[in-house]
Amino acid sequence: MTTEPVRVGIVGLGTVGSGVVRLLIESADHITRHTGRPIVVERAVCRDVGRDRGLKLPAERISADIRDIARDPSISVAALLVGGLEPARSMMVELLENGKDVVTANKALLAEHGPELFELARSRGRSIAFEAAVAGGIPIVAAIGECLAANRIESIRGILNGTSNFILSRMEEDGADYAEVLALAQARGYAEADPSMDVDGTDATQKLAILSHLAFGVWVPWAEIPRTGIERIDAALLNYAAELGYRIRLVAVAARTDTADGERLAMRVAPALVKIGTPLAETRRAYNAVSIVGDAVGRMFFHGLGAGQMPTASAVVGDIIDTVVGRTAITFRTTGVLDVESPTAKIAGVDMLERHFLRIRVTDRPGVLSQITGILGSHGISIASVIQHGAEMSEGTDAPVPLVIMTHAAASTAVRGALEAIDRCSTVRGPSDCLSVLDDA
Amino acid sequence: MTTEPVRVGIVGLGTVGSGVVRLLIESADHITRHTGRPIVVERAVCRDVGRDRGLKLPAERISADIRDIARDPSISVAALLVGGLEPARSMMVELLENGKDVVTANKALLAEHGPELFELARSRGRSIAFEAAVAGGIPIVAAIGECLAANRIESIRGILNGTSNFILSRMEEDGADYAEVLALAQARGYAEADPSMDVDGTDATQKLAILSHLAFGVWVPWAEIPRTGIERIDAALLNYAAELGYRIRLVAVAARTDTADGERLAMRVAPALVKIGTPLAETRRAYNAVSIVGDAVGRMFFHGLGAGQMPTASAVVGDIIDTVVGRTAITFRTTGVLDVESPTAKIAGVDMLERHFLRIRVTDRPGVLSQITGILGSHGISIASVIQHGAEMSEGTDAPVPLVIMTHAAASTAVRGALEAIDRCSTVRGPSDCLSVLDDA
Repeated sequence: MTTEPVRVGIVGLGTVGSGVVRLLIESADHITRHTGRPIVVERAVCRDVGRDRGLKLPAERISADIRDIARDPSISVAALLVGGLEPARSMMVELLENGKDVVTANKALLAEHGPELFELARSRGRSIAFEAAVAGGIPIVAAIGECLAANRIESIRGILNGTSNFILSRMEEDGADYAEVLALAQARGYAEADPSMDVDGTDATQKLAILSHLAFGVWVPWAEIPRTGIERIDAALLNYAAELGYRIRLVAVAARTDTADGERLAMRVAPALVKIGTPLAETRRAYNAVSIVGDAVGRMFFHGLGAGQMPTASAVVGDIIDTVVGRTAITFRTTGVLDVESPTAKIAGVDMLERHFLRIRVTDRPGVLSQITGILGSHGISIASVIQHGAEMSEGTDAPVPLVIMTHAAASTAVRGALEAIDRCSTVRGPSDCLSVLDDA
Repeated sequence: MTTEPVRVGIVGLGTVGSGVVRLLIESADHITRHTGRPIVVERAVCRDVGRDRGLKLPAERISADIRDIARDPSISVAALLVGGLEPARSMMVELLENGKDVVTANKALLAEHGPELFELARSRGRSIAFEAAVAGGIPIVAAIGECLAANRIESIRGILNGTSNFILSRMEEDGADYAEVLALAQARGYAEADPSMDVDGTDATQKLAILSHLAFGVWVPWAEIPRTGIERIDAALLNYAAELGYRIRLVAVAARTDTADGERLAMRVAPALVKIGTPLAETRRAYNAVSIVGDAVGRMFFHGLGAGQMPTASAVVGDIIDTVVGRTAITFRTTGVLDVESPTAKIAGVDMLERHFLRIRVTDRPGVLSQITGILGSHGISIASVIQHGAEMSEGTDAPVPLVIMTHAAASTAVRGALEAIDRCSTVRGPSDCLSVLDDA
């Protein structure tokens, strides 16, 4: 074995970048045993060169110009740990064009520009590793792309955003409302000052697009995936769910689905009711979880920290090791094997047959229930249970009264159609809430 | 990419071997996309050549002599899917000496002869892949050996034997006794006619030895790992545990532990109380689960089918793909990096500081409780709670009455010492039961 060190460059010294430098330096002996060669942080580039991050990295190895890494021939691997689309995209291009293998944690960049960046890397004989881009420390990219390679993946379900899961599980535990818990999460550093990408489902949707590329061989533009955030979830909704034996989680779903036009990929990110006792329901706080069904292996479940400095650094350094020893080059060659053709055409309007949980606020009782159940019936939706709750707040005698309805399995388009008709009723104070129910999550 | 097929040999056409042949043939297109080359079953060898297994494998490709694979120069990879030590060991040697890369699901063989077989493979420039040997379809070998390579592993806890987990979870759900459920498991094919290796902890211990090799770089002779089976678990014990908020699971544990003599590896396989709601407690039926703590990644949890034809075949074929594309050769080179020196010396008498659950059957009440608590106190064990239950069976007026005691955290050797003294009391009908309590399992 050669003992010549491998020199790596770190682009970005934010939370994750600093964690990666720390891990590479503090666990150097351990990592050397895994690679057979020492891994040396030759250079780090960042915007604020002078800031003290408490890193054991000599000041002369920190600079501000990406070209200090890209054009240093002694550096073979670069970790791109800058968020957002630009300048991250240009940096990735600069690194690949200068012959560096790249490791990244930037899910937005891959979800938006994955195909062109992958193509560029392949054309230059380089690789991109991105375990850290999805579910932080959980090795879900390797699991789908390598370990479960013998399987035709049937479905993926995941809790892929730690911030929104933290908010939902705290709301449930404390009986607190959304705004209250969001403020707490921000104070504790679990949520960004602008948490909109987390709570509106964007972040989870981008991660789902990346996992679907690995699992189904399609690049689905993430913005085309139906997406609902957690902003409308309130304490009352969580209580109704709990009464019925469920928790509410923001669940990303991609599943092969038979339709009249043949097999389609059904995808969405939305809050859903997950049965208490199932693994997704037991995923709390900032944890992430992924459940995968493969035709041979059956249902596999993974749970771990999906974000945070050191869990993400664990995945980045794991990828650096894989790249150094040569595993990444092999895997990257076979990543994204096409199983479903013409990807973008395949997800539009794909219906999932599921049970649904509805909350409909009505202003007047006699006759209303029969009107609403009549509309559901005329849309072919059969009802499993109706619970009539008291008014949620003391808003006077004409306060809206919530009807909580569980349907039997029904096509999601039919349920949405029925709800539109229901919300047009003068006795209904809309918009009503509609969540899928996952009994085997 | 070359389209020259890779020819593999399958040794053993039992449940797993037949599943592997089925998967390789039925998912051939899918697998070819992952490898870039078709994988062809060139030959299968088994004892009963004539038996119809319903496989789409021409009869002329099935024979009885391992040399038909070992000495066929067109075959580069062999899957050894025969259980037990011999002739499996000789077959593995024959395959390696003839230059085949080997994939195996045989945990007993690796736990017993791993070091010499690994050494032989290395000396011949060949590899051994063994994802299927531990936890079936769960990619735990890859997770520890590759994905979490950046981490110093602190501990592993796992439910590694599906048969004993099936028995324990059915006993709990049905309130049935051990013998009853074992008979059911045998009737359903979940337990072998001779289930002793499953229920006495041998199988789980062998798997723990293999995982510890990957995680801690030590080869611990499996027979030296303290081991207790599930044979003494009865319905009453499960009920007491449930009253306190716990389930009983057969848990394999390996953890770095600080001792007066420096860091040691604490290991054991034994039934333990795991808190309801934690992932190990929610692992039911024939499922396996592994919880790993890494210094960077924190706690990771994996759950899936640990046995059965297709889940195991999924892991075997995954390994065949990894071997064909070249990932295994790289991984095998770095497997088993030494973190803890002089392995065998390190596990003897290592104490774990844990809470303990005791069931002590006493024949007479007044004064007995004070005698027993006195003995515990004199061994430095402090008590968290005592529950006095009624007699378990109607055995007359002098029937033993169970005392259920939860201790605060105490060294396991101290607890065992105290129990020996307690069991010597004339008022105690021993042997008493002692289980560790895992609150964060």
